[in-house]
Amino acid sequence: MKISEIGEFGLIDMIAGMIAGHRDEAAESSKRLIMGIGDDAALWKGSERTQVATTDTLVEGVHFSLKFCDWESLGWKALAVNLSDIAAMGAHPLYALVSLSLPGDVLVQDVASFYKGMLDLCSKSGTTIAGGNCSSSNKVVITLAVVGEVDAGRTLLRSGAEPGDVVAMTGFTGLSAAGLKRLQSKGRNNARNRAEIAGGGRESESLLEEAFLRPRPRLKEAQFLAGKGVKAAIDVSDGLLKDLGHICESSKVSTEVNTGSVPVHPLLKEYSGRNALKLALGGGEDYELVFTASKKTLSKVKEGIGCPVTVIGKVTGKSEAGKLIIRDEKGKVVSPGKYGWEHFKQS
Amino acid sequence: MKISEIGEFGLIDMIAGMIAGHRDEAAESSKRLIMGIGDDAALWKGSERTQVATTDTLVEGVHFSLKFCDWESLGWKALAVNLSDIAAMGAHPLYALVSLSLPGDVLVQDVASFYKGMLDLCSKSGTTIAGGNCSSSNKVVITLAVVGEVDAGRTLLRSGAEPGDVVAMTGFTGLSAAGLKRLQSKGRNNARNRAEIAGGGRESESLLEEAFLRPRPRLKEAQFLAGKGVKAAIDVSDGLLKDLGHICESSKVSTEVNTGSVPVHPLLKEYSGRNALKLALGGGEDYELVFTASKKTLSKVKEGIGCPVTVIGKVTGKSEAGKLIIRDEKGKVVSPGKYGWEHFKQS
Repeated sequence: MKISEIGEFGLIDMIAGMIAGHRDEAAESSKRLIMGIGDDAALWKGSERTQVATTDTLVEGVHFSLKFCDWESLGWKALAVNLSDIAAMGAHPLYALVSLSLPGDVLVQDVASFYKGMLDLCSKSGTTIAGGNCSSSNKVVITLAVVGEVDAGRTLLRSGAEPGDVVAMTGFTGLSAAGLKRLQSKGRNNARNRAEIAGGGRESESLLEEAFLRPRPRLKEAQFLAGKGVKAAIDVSDGLLKDLGHICESSKVSTEVNTGSVPVHPLLKEYSGRNALKLALGGGEDYELVFTASKKTLSKVKEGIGCPVTVIGKVTGKSEAGKLIIRDEKGKVVSPGKYGWEHFKQS
Repeated sequence: MKISEIGEFGLIDMIAGMIAGHRDEAAESSKRLIMGIGDDAALWKGSERTQVATTDTLVEGVHFSLKFCDWESLGWKALAVNLSDIAAMGAHPLYALVSLSLPGDVLVQDVASFYKGMLDLCSKSGTTIAGGNCSSSNKVVITLAVVGEVDAGRTLLRSGAEPGDVVAMTGFTGLSAAGLKRLQSKGRNNARNRAEIAGGGRESESLLEEAFLRPRPRLKEAQFLAGKGVKAAIDVSDGLLKDLGHICESSKVSTEVNTGSVPVHPLLKEYSGRNALKLALGGGEDYELVFTASKKTLSKVKEGIGCPVTVIGKVTGKSEAGKLIIRDEKGKVVSPGKYGWEHFKQS
């Protein structure tokens, strides 16, 4: 059945039912919720902690294609990209507001799958969907806003890097960009069969696709970093070098990265060959964390964070405009080239 | 210059500059802001008051057309429709997050006008733009999320209506729907000339258009209602009868409306003739408030609210599913017909 057949209010009823049925009474966000879907706005009990809020949008044909992205993954990812911004502040998420703009011929079951994917990640992250909005459009446009909290003084800021810090990152980058390429080359059938592939013992093969479709926001790891005294971090959405550049600008520091130290995942090497390092440095949407810390803090971090942490460079000094120097494995300074991705700009 | 020429980060720099230049240091939201645009998420000082949050979207070709809606009005309206939801809870707004999806050929000056319109209403309402997101798309899609606060026990809920209450409304409805028709019939030239028309002594003529383009969210009036003990309210976004129907459903009450009591603005009569009452009952996007209150509370409300308040009906009893009975000026029960507007549904 198409959503044009049940209408806006029929759709909202279905969504409200799914969210109510999924509510985790034990979660802090659930306990504090006073009014979820069903009034003009959501209400919850406030706190004097520092409040954090972010918004991010996925546009059909720009951020994803329904030819290779299934609706359940889309729901997961729409929330994940927002949670990653909450993580990058060292905060924990509480509430999500979901704005869906959809063509009338979208199937009701696809919207249900979308919410299933989102609610899955809600459970894993303690997030409650507190409200939203449905409207019609010619393409799918999904905007989430997520509100959360963090203790004052435990925030991770782009502006917190200090000369003498090392630059480190969690996990691996470039997998998402490689996954996107793989999905694009496989085309439409993939969206239908992805669930079976993932469940059929071919998990290692689908790891690249999962990196693109179901990124894992580093919430716990970021809170762990903040707890150990890390002050500066960003999540990798635009690309490792580009996002590290934002830290340099905001912190007014110069930083050196040694590309030979950037970890390249074996699967990325296998799939992308000579392009692997380029993807690791410039491919976006990995939602790993890049951060800076004193060597002492870093050694504390490495114990117990529960994910790979790799030192990739150092903060060398102050720089009013911010400066990022890239050296290859032989120590030679190289041009950043065109890493990262920017909206609107014709290149 | 097109936004494709300055790119996402150039656009964000311009927007951040406009917002910084416009910051009202005296506003509570400004005092509590710790981090606005420039990090992964916004940060502000929390409070133990009840938190309120809403989101609403405007889609080109669905909610507006650039043929007759100028960018400054669009900015105003995008914020206004969200503030109206905050008002409908009796709350005051604090922060807005702005997600813009734009085609690359949109002019930079149009985005500046859009923010000018939004910042205008920010000043009037004490709202601070704390963050947002820019991405490319084939049509303009604007989603705002607004966060605010309200004292516990001073909220206006859809579920607060009681048998014996009167049903009342602020101002006039139907003007926005008539304004939209007028704009559609005038077409493209209007967007260019609207500012001149409004400034050229023909203000009374452009009142209908203003109702559509620059709705005034009833923030102060709603807070006044809540302060006087009103418990149930909704803002008129879908249409007077349709939105009153939501109060009936949420409060589980039956309500009677006398269409002869619904105020019809003289300009609406002049422009829409025999259709005036139909527009007043069913036309959406007026952002007036419909509320219920005891007669005693209503008499307190009428003194000092500073806008017209008209009794249009009464809450007659309990009703599990909610029931809305419409009587014409002779007291005869009439069918609601097809008032209001719904997304997706083919009618």
